[in-house]
Amino acid sequence: MLEQLRAELGEVLVTDPVALDALRADKSGQRSDGPPLALVEAREVAHVQAALRWAHAHDVPVVPRGAGTGLAGGAIGRSGELVVSTARMTRVLEISADDELAVVEAGLVNAALNAALAPHGLWYAPDPASRDISTIGGNIATNAGGLMCVKYGVTREAVLGLAVVLADGRLLRLGRRTVKGVTGYDLTALFIGSEGTLGVVVEATLRLRRLDRGEVVTLSAAFPDVAAAAAAAAAITAAGIRPAALELLDASALEAIGAHLGLDLGARAAQLLVQTDGAAAAVEAAAVLAILGAHGGAAERAADADEGERLFAVRRAFHPAMERLGTVLIEDVAVPRSALPDMFAAIGRIEREHGIRIPTVAHAGDGNLHPNFVITAHDGSGEVGVPDEVWAAADDLFRECLRLGGTLTGEHGVGLLKRRWLRDELGDDAVELQRGIKAVFDPTGILNPGKVF
Amino acid sequence: MLEQLRAELGEVLVTDPVALDALRADKSGQRSDGPPLALVEAREVAHVQAALRWAHAHDVPVVPRGAGTGLAGGAIGRSGELVVSTARMTRVLEISADDELAVVEAGLVNAALNAALAPHGLWYAPDPASRDISTIGGNIATNAGGLMCVKYGVTREAVLGLAVVLADGRLLRLGRRTVKGVTGYDLTALFIGSEGTLGVVVEATLRLRRLDRGEVVTLSAAFPDVAAAAAAAAAITAAGIRPAALELLDASALEAIGAHLGLDLGARAAQLLVQTDGAAAAVEAAAVLAILGAHGGAAERAADADEGERLFAVRRAFHPAMERLGTVLIEDVAVPRSALPDMFAAIGRIEREHGIRIPTVAHAGDGNLHPNFVITAHDGSGEVGVPDEVWAAADDLFRECLRLGGTLTGEHGVGLLKRRWLRDELGDDAVELQRGIKAVFDPTGILNPGKVF
Ligand SMILES: Cc1cc2nc3c(=O)[nH]c(=O)nc-3n(C[C@H](O)[C@H](O)[C@H](O)COP(=O)(O)OP(=O)(O)OC[C@H]3O[C@@H](n4cnc5c(N)ncnc54)[C@H](O)[C@@H]3O)c2cc1C
Ligand SMILES: Cc1cc2nc3c(=O)[nH]c(=O)nc-3n(C[C@H](O)[C@H](O)[C@H](O)COP(=O)(O)OP(=O)(O)OC[C@H]3O[C@@H](n4cnc5c(N)ncnc54)[C@H](O)[C@@H]3O)c2cc1C
Repeated sequence: MLEQLRAELGEVLVTDPVALDALRADKSGQRSDGPPLALVEAREVAHVQAALRWAHAHDVPVVPRGAGTGLAGGAIGRSGELVVSTARMTRVLEISADDELAVVEAGLVNAALNAALAPHGLWYAPDPASRDISTIGGNIATNAGGLMCVKYGVTREAVLGLAVVLADGRLLRLGRRTVKGVTGYDLTALFIGSEGTLGVVVEATLRLRRLDRGEVVTLSAAFPDVAAAAAAAAAITAAGIRPAALELLDASALEAIGAHLGLDLGARAAQLLVQTDGAAAAVEAAAVLAILGAHGGAAERAADADEGERLFAVRRAFHPAMERLGTVLIEDVAVPRSALPDMFAAIGRIEREHGIRIPTVAHAGDGNLHPNFVITAHDGSGEVGVPDEVWAAADDLFRECLRLGGTLTGEHGVGLLKRRWLRDELGDDAVELQRGIKAVFDPTGILNPGKVF
Repeated sequence: MLEQLRAELGEVLVTDPVALDALRADKSGQRSDGPPLALVEAREVAHVQAALRWAHAHDVPVVPRGAGTGLAGGAIGRSGELVVSTARMTRVLEISADDELAVVEAGLVNAALNAALAPHGLWYAPDPASRDISTIGGNIATNAGGLMCVKYGVTREAVLGLAVVLADGRLLRLGRRTVKGVTGYDLTALFIGSEGTLGVVVEATLRLRRLDRGEVVTLSAAFPDVAAAAAAAAAITAAGIRPAALELLDASALEAIGAHLGLDLGARAAQLLVQTDGAAAAVEAAAVLAILGAHGGAAERAADADEGERLFAVRRAFHPAMERLGTVLIEDVAVPRSALPDMFAAIGRIEREHGIRIPTVAHAGDGNLHPNFVITAHDGSGEVGVPDEVWAAADDLFRECLRLGGTLTGEHGVGLLKRRWLRDELGDDAVELQRGIKAVFDPTGILNPGKVF
């Protein structure tokens, strides 16, 4: 059966066991039952179309995949599935400074796009911490956010149009090159965050900004406890200030980062990092400083850009520091910003009651928290699983988050990890409508089955 | 049959012939074949639900309607149809300064919302020229834009969540209160711009901004010809400046406004109005002035806010000036901003070749043009129709717009007026998918049939 596809695709079709084994995982800590059938390493749109036509004809499940850095298990390939990777489709097709847009292939890495844009004085704003390793297609499929999305918007705000390959191999262009438009339903928005369940994104028309951020001021403040830091963060956004980044680290996160970097961050029970930019940078920084002080924060202002970068290096060391701790379940809830203190209080309670360490960082300006559940018990097989007691703690977290008016996932997606809580957030009627939409795009259900729903 | 609904709704059900006759039109100049069956003037969600349940049971077509200011014929009721109006559902349910959001009923008028927000120092940014008369529900259903959307975003960027009544009367909550989220498909985005074809919007959770715009600088420049003005507008956005408003008026528009206001705007072949605001207002205004001058514009800077308002009053007088001219077909194409000069050249050619006067204003910063086709020939019946020769000219316009990479409608919607061009822009595959989505929400096709598709 596969031979027919090999005849069409040649070396683009990969069946090397080592390569296939790597597709059983992403960065979520999940690992599938067994290696997928094969991998299509598409170099061009026609390869994706051929793969989907074949899969459609033979009713083979298809897993779209970018760089595999996802944290929800969405790109994981299981036995019997065909993984279609866009990671080798990396061309920049157009850069227009006049219209502030770029047209790129889906496999382009986020940071590579920005490297290509810089000489034009342009910038693609969505900046996941994984920007050096994740692809634009993966960013779109998960509606990726990042540190500076609090001011400059998430992926959804930065995509004008898409080219997608449908389940049966047809190529479809969605959206537009104009900044406004209301001709028919917004199918582009529907694809953003759809986690590979509606089609394979092969090309995107992206909305750009000017690279020049103007003055950049970086502030850092240590707090005696996380409640004070969370209250200060909520007060900054409630004051109408729009920082370019507003990150919170709790004591447990700081301890792990300190150990990883060999720094003494010990005394700090919580830390806020704030960046302001543009023409109002200095004025906003002054207002932020006042709020930090009023909430008991010991604040310092970076003397220059280098020192600012050093302050943010602490935040960027979070993921590596977690990796040193062993396996973690990286969570991703979001709450209304005013509920940030309550959410941190709930995390403290869950840590105590469940006896699990949960170092937490937050894109506090967005109310988006990443509690990292440290998994001490491995199952012995050398493979990672999330033990039931960790899921019980995560369940507690999700319920608190929903109770506070929040959402299960701010930027990582549902994937495999959060399917069981989907109905708790959306309700049965909305889930049925979503399934109905899925069936319109993918009537035979071959696209990323078992993910999201 | 209607008696059953009357028993349930009482005086909320209106069958007064005068009231019903008014529902045959909106502001598009279209008028339906005959008055609708009845009008439901909902005061609360339960009324909308009762109306939809009844309509669903009896297979009666439903036309959702706000204030009826639409320019695409989307809210027009035809014989045999039930018009469900949300215009009397005008409550503000919540204003949260801390979370920068408001929850309101769909019938609230845009300007009334801003009046309620002002004491809290908050602002809902989307500002259609019809803000004093159009409803939030109608704005959402058309993805309304306005003068300041070039900097502050259109309706799509300002809606976090919705409550909608489905075709069978079920109430559904979509979206969230958080600024980020990626749990399932973005059904909220799907409803924005859906023109009453997917459900009735009854409530919206809106993202707000701070009212304080900081310094506001207003500039006005007269140009010797529209090509120079369009080139200057494109150059301003291409220079990376983000004005709060950037409006263009052509000679024919200025002539009509001059006649209406009794001003001598005669010498101006085209005019640009620019507003900058915030901390960079002065710096950006200086850069704009240089660009205006370089393109041959005779620019003036308003001495103060009052003079700025007077300059923009010229733009705001456009619609009344058009009404004095008689009936006009108000068009709404959008092109990539770099194509603005080409689009104005095309309009000039169409005016000459079709012998039709087409005064045009543009939200130039968005590349969104409103060519107004002046209809001199009335059909004598006292009722307005768009004559074939005007549609032929409009057809020419749409084709030029699509050729330039543009879209049929920037902010008014498809409604009845542009159905025949839908496939030209979207292609057959996309239209079929859209119809499929429509069928998921409205399997029996009772919601605004004949609109959009
Ligand atoms: C250290 C680290 C830091 C991170 N920081 C952030 C962060 O700050 N913000 C954030 O949002 N995420 C973050 N992530 C998560 C991850 O990087 C993002 O979800 C990213 O968008 C995934 O991109 P990818 O190319 O790796 O996609 P993959 O992991 O390959 O796939 C992710 C999902 O997208 C789908 N998909 C991929 N490509 C396509 C395509 N072409 N068409 C259709 N569907 C496709 C897959 O099916 C899957 O469901 C981080 C991850 C790591 C490891
Ligand atoms: C003088 C003038 C200036 C204008 N300027 C602008 C402008 O600058 N920008 C702009 O975008 N538009 C403009 N418009 C057009 C119009 O005002 C907008 O389209 C507005 O959003 C319509 O709101 P409405 O409440 O009048 O809706 P209606 O005209 O009643 O309805 C419009 C569409 O929305 C649907 N709809 C209404 N309410 C609901 C609901 N509760 N649930 C589901 N569907 C619903 C209807 O079915 C219809 O398809 C202007 C109109 C006029 C007359």
